[in-house]
Amino acid sequence: MKIREVGEFALLDRLSRIIALPGDEVIIGIGDDAALWKGSSFALATTDSLVAGVHFFMDDLSFREVGSKSILVNVSDIAAMGGIPKYALISLSLSPEMEFCEVEELGEGISKVCSALGISIVGGNLSSCPTLVVNVTLIGEAKDEKVLTRRGARVSDLVAVTGYLGLAGGYRRLKSEIHNLDLRIRSILRQAFACPKARILEGRMLCESGVRAAIDVSDGLVQDLSHICEGSHLGAIIMIDRLPLHPEVCEFLTAEDALYGGEDYELLFTAPPQLMPALEQRLPCPLTVVGRMVEDHPGEIILLDGKGNRLPHLRSGWDHFAHPNLKP
Amino acid sequence: MKIREVGEFALLDRLSRIIALPGDEVIIGIGDDAALWKGSSFALATTDSLVAGVHFFMDDLSFREVGSKSILVNVSDIAAMGGIPKYALISLSLSPEMEFCEVEELGEGISKVCSALGISIVGGNLSSCPTLVVNVTLIGEAKDEKVLTRRGARVSDLVAVTGYLGLAGGYRRLKSEIHNLDLRIRSILRQAFACPKARILEGRMLCESGVRAAIDVSDGLVQDLSHICEGSHLGAIIMIDRLPLHPEVCEFLTAEDALYGGEDYELLFTAPPQLMPALEQRLPCPLTVVGRMVEDHPGEIILLDGKGNRLPHLRSGWDHFAHPNLKP
Repeated sequence: MKIREVGEFALLDRLSRIIALPGDEVIIGIGDDAALWKGSSFALATTDSLVAGVHFFMDDLSFREVGSKSILVNVSDIAAMGGIPKYALISLSLSPEMEFCEVEELGEGISKVCSALGISIVGGNLSSCPTLVVNVTLIGEAKDEKVLTRRGARVSDLVAVTGYLGLAGGYRRLKSEIHNLDLRIRSILRQAFACPKARILEGRMLCESGVRAAIDVSDGLVQDLSHICEGSHLGAIIMIDRLPLHPEVCEFLTAEDALYGGEDYELLFTAPPQLMPALEQRLPCPLTVVGRMVEDHPGEIILLDGKGNRLPHLRSGWDHFAHPNLKP
Repeated sequence: MKIREVGEFALLDRLSRIIALPGDEVIIGIGDDAALWKGSSFALATTDSLVAGVHFFMDDLSFREVGSKSILVNVSDIAAMGGIPKYALISLSLSPEMEFCEVEELGEGISKVCSALGISIVGGNLSSCPTLVVNVTLIGEAKDEKVLTRRGARVSDLVAVTGYLGLAGGYRRLKSEIHNLDLRIRSILRQAFACPKARILEGRMLCESGVRAAIDVSDGLVQDLSHICEGSHLGAIIMIDRLPLHPEVCEFLTAEDALYGGEDYELLFTAPPQLMPALEQRLPCPLTVVGRMVEDHPGEIILLDGKGNRLPHLRSGWDHFAHPNLKP
């Protein structure tokens, strides 16, 4: 049944039943003009959208995956500050021609990942729109003012990343021929694209260990590191033979996927060299040093090969208004 | 120049210059993965979108007005809880074919109203999208847990509204013939539609005066009062000869505009009769008693004419997925 036949209020009613009960701090949840909760000393907030035909195509992701990914990309931003995600507000812009069960699946995807991560859904909004747009605002808490920022890098800090790079970018590049690949390979690539990791614990641990500069890799390593460079008025060197490629799929990925692919949602951070061994021991995921911050060339990223030779940049990162994937 | 020619980062840079500096409580504003601010004991949050072709047509509103209205509709929700709006996160879904100056105007509209109301813009997001969607999440503060809710109405409470009803609905109904009307009439109708009032002070005063039930009139008096009825497990009577129509334009408006028109963004509240004289004296706007809460017919709205005769409902309120104005 189409949602235009069901109507807004029946849809709202169904979605509010799918959504898990909020946590104890929530005094008023969904269903009033605004939500009310007991606040914390330091609040964090971020917002991000997934737009059909831009961030994904409906043959790439199930509605459930669109729902869960819309939360995870925001969780990644809170994690990159060293915070804990707490409250989500979700705006769904839906075509009246969407099937009721598709919106249910979208809601289930959102609800499931929020439940798993202890996030209370406290607000939302439904609008009709020719294009599916899922907008999430995520509000979190920080322990104190010492969060991870783009301006916290220092000269001679090492540049490191959690996990692996280039998987989601590789998936997008290989998509048209992916059925030729082994099931396991396909699954690793697709999983990274459809269901990015939530590095909440890692962000907290980095912050507690004294790290001060981080960003999540959403637009590609080069572009996101350049934000740290600009924020910290420094340059950075990336050693491209150090890029962490997933061992099971590395033969299918290129340095370009890791440098520019984007949607990795790993944490990119900088830290003094002496901090790195403790971090490697403490964090529950692979950590790879990929470069270092330098005083020269503020705002610039220098790519070096294994022999220390400078390489030209291959391309720039994602631009929402000039991207070739864009269906205008 | 089109925004696809300018690119995302130049646009972000320009928008961040348009936006006023945030308040002192903001430790990290726009430009990092998430914003950070000193929290409050009780936090409120709401989210709402304006979608081109659904909530407005581009010949109805200037880009500046779309920007300011996107904030005001959210302010109205925080005001209806008795709270103070503090922090906004704004997601713009923009067509790459939009002109750079149009996005600048949108940003100026957003910034101006936020500055005027003491709201700090702390986050945002740009996406390309075939349709213009402006989504705002507004975070506010409440003094304590005693906020205005939909469940706070009691039997025999009077039902009252701030200001006038039916202006925006009347504007939409009369739009095609509006150029035949006197300039002053046109201006009153259009202003109500394009630039709704922010009833922040009124919401605070209602809350401080002991009022416990309120909602903002976004979907029409009947529909929004029915939310209070459902939340409070009561029925309500509306006396249609009491509907507050603006004295200068009342001859152009119908009871139907006031009952079902929507987008009034006035505060609809219930209060014991003995509280009403003090409220009328204290609030800086017209207050009109339009009915009362009753124990019978829970969830139902009964319309009475001047002689006490029951009238049939003329139509239901706004449904986003079945509205005739919708351009699917």
